[in-house]
Amino acid sequence: MKQLWLFKEISNDLSVVDKRLEQYVHADIPLLSQASTHLLAAGGKRLRPAFVLLVGRLYKSEIDRVMPLAMALELIHMATLVHDDVVDASMTRRGRPTVKANWGNRISVHAGDHLFAKSLLLISEMNDPEISRILADVSIQMCQGEIQQIRSTFDVSQTPKDYYYRIKRKTALLISASCKLSAIVCGAPRRQVWALGAYGHALGMAFQIVDDILDLTANQSELGKPVGGDLRQGIITIPMIYGLRNSSQHNRLAELLADNNKTEAEVLEAVELISNSGAIQESLELGQKYVAKAKKYLSVIPKTSARTALEQLADFITVRKY
Amino acid sequence: MKQLWLFKEISNDLSVVDKRLEQYVHADIPLLSQASTHLLAAGGKRLRPAFVLLVGRLYKSEIDRVMPLAMALELIHMATLVHDDVVDASMTRRGRPTVKANWGNRISVHAGDHLFAKSLLLISEMNDPEISRILADVSIQMCQGEIQQIRSTFDVSQTPKDYYYRIKRKTALLISASCKLSAIVCGAPRRQVWALGAYGHALGMAFQIVDDILDLTANQSELGKPVGGDLRQGIITIPMIYGLRNSSQHNRLAELLADNNKTEAEVLEAVELISNSGAIQESLELGQKYVAKAKKYLSVIPKTSARTALEQLADFITVRKY
Repeated sequence: MKQLWLFKEISNDLSVVDKRLEQYVHADIPLLSQASTHLLAAGGKRLRPAFVLLVGRLYKSEIDRVMPLAMALELIHMATLVHDDVVDASMTRRGRPTVKANWGNRISVHAGDHLFAKSLLLISEMNDPEISRILADVSIQMCQGEIQQIRSTFDVSQTPKDYYYRIKRKTALLISASCKLSAIVCGAPRRQVWALGAYGHALGMAFQIVDDILDLTANQSELGKPVGGDLRQGIITIPMIYGLRNSSQHNRLAELLADNNKTEAEVLEAVELISNSGAIQESLELGQKYVAKAKKYLSVIPKTSARTALEQLADFITVRKY
Repeated sequence: MKQLWLFKEISNDLSVVDKRLEQYVHADIPLLSQASTHLLAAGGKRLRPAFVLLVGRLYKSEIDRVMPLAMALELIHMATLVHDDVVDASMTRRGRPTVKANWGNRISVHAGDHLFAKSLLLISEMNDPEISRILADVSIQMCQGEIQQIRSTFDVSQTPKDYYYRIKRKTALLISASCKLSAIVCGAPRRQVWALGAYGHALGMAFQIVDDILDLTANQSELGKPVGGDLRQGIITIPMIYGLRNSSQHNRLAELLADNNKTEAEVLEAVELISNSGAIQESLELGQKYVAKAKKYLSVIPKTSARTALEQLADFITVRKY
């Protein structure tokens, strides 16, 4: 698992999350266990559990208190990954074959549903209707974001506002919920619950912006998936929107981005036009603005080493390479 | 909408469920609204809301008290239909094109997730962790049933026990939950809650057995979908299992059922072999046994017109033609 080095403080706890998840997704049906375990083993940053655990540290909470939430949020995230793979026809994720590539569409849909239902059971056992309500609301909005992303593929008339709408639902809401719900579970004062939710939201936006930059600039071995994936799938990200606005070869870039059957050479041409327009730098600055905003929200949180970790995590977002 | 005539007593209330559902699945994204509304308009028997409402009548409950549950259960059912369509590649359901046929796999997965998430919001707003827990557990088992159904297609070595495992998860658990949870919401005594859950379970088994018989014997206009669908998809149902056991031409029938690329003539040949073996009658008797069991569970319920309606509903299950 490619863990962020910043999670060193909680790396033992994250291993516990992993172990518990592995036990928990076990099903009587071997195929279902295999599909779920495969996805778990492929790893990922465990970003959502990490936020839950770090916020738990803020309030000196026992790990068992926040563990079900940490597990539930990772399960929701995993379920969306499995369903995204179905619909996007992607055959690798994190450098490994996707569940779909191994088991086909039919199993993937139900394996995703199974992970989601397992997370519901964990959440229902937390006996707090507010938590259920917030996560149901987030789930609804995540679906709406996915549909909007499909609808808007190859649409080069999109504005930054359209992009914010999508990445809020794709990434920011669930990371915000990770921070906010952990604070609720720990019995944090309402003002701090709100601030941590706002921190997670801003950080989630920054995280997705950097993800979308890396999709254009990182190399495949760092990223664990083919570079230029968004370009190929027609997902119009903020560097592309800025590129369209700034590039001296606007029309050519628009033509390339709108083409749903690009050659590899055309993908590289589009990447170069975007890079030369200054759009990467501008997108990075947008990400940094969100990071600064995120850190500001932490001002109401007591100054402890856990708060420092949350601040460092924010800073790390824009310098990461994977 | 093809409503069961037996629901006359609650047909006004069922119309209210429909109206509320239509408002509730509305989303800001037109495509998502269209997909959901399309499915709602296609109708269906609204069996799960009907059970919720009838049990509500048992306890003289206001319709608003059980309405969120009735809506939530129909949404869960609809979500599974949409996801089943994705995986089974079926292009019609209830005589209309499926969501998948109209909008493709990608939209269907997220439209199904959206319906499910909307049901979660309703459930979380009911503020009863027991209800959330039971429905999460049912959802998990439903996924396991779906996976098992996929795994076992064209497998002619299946026993009645394998079949019971699948239809319990495919149908009986959610109908059982409809009765049981409505009783919980209405504050019924625990013994009656249990009895209504058991009634729903037995009736759900009977309902699916009859569904599987009709798939072989009904005509297309009555059923609203092509006859022999299970045969084509390789879903081995109880009439097929009995047919394999009873038929004098066992080997030929096994060969036909295991063939995942049957001609239309071979489908009809299989139907005839099953019919001639007496398997249809034997399956019907199995369904009637479950109906008798279901009615017996009602003995602890006070004798009212609502209880009579539940008994009549049970009797109707095995004589219905659609």
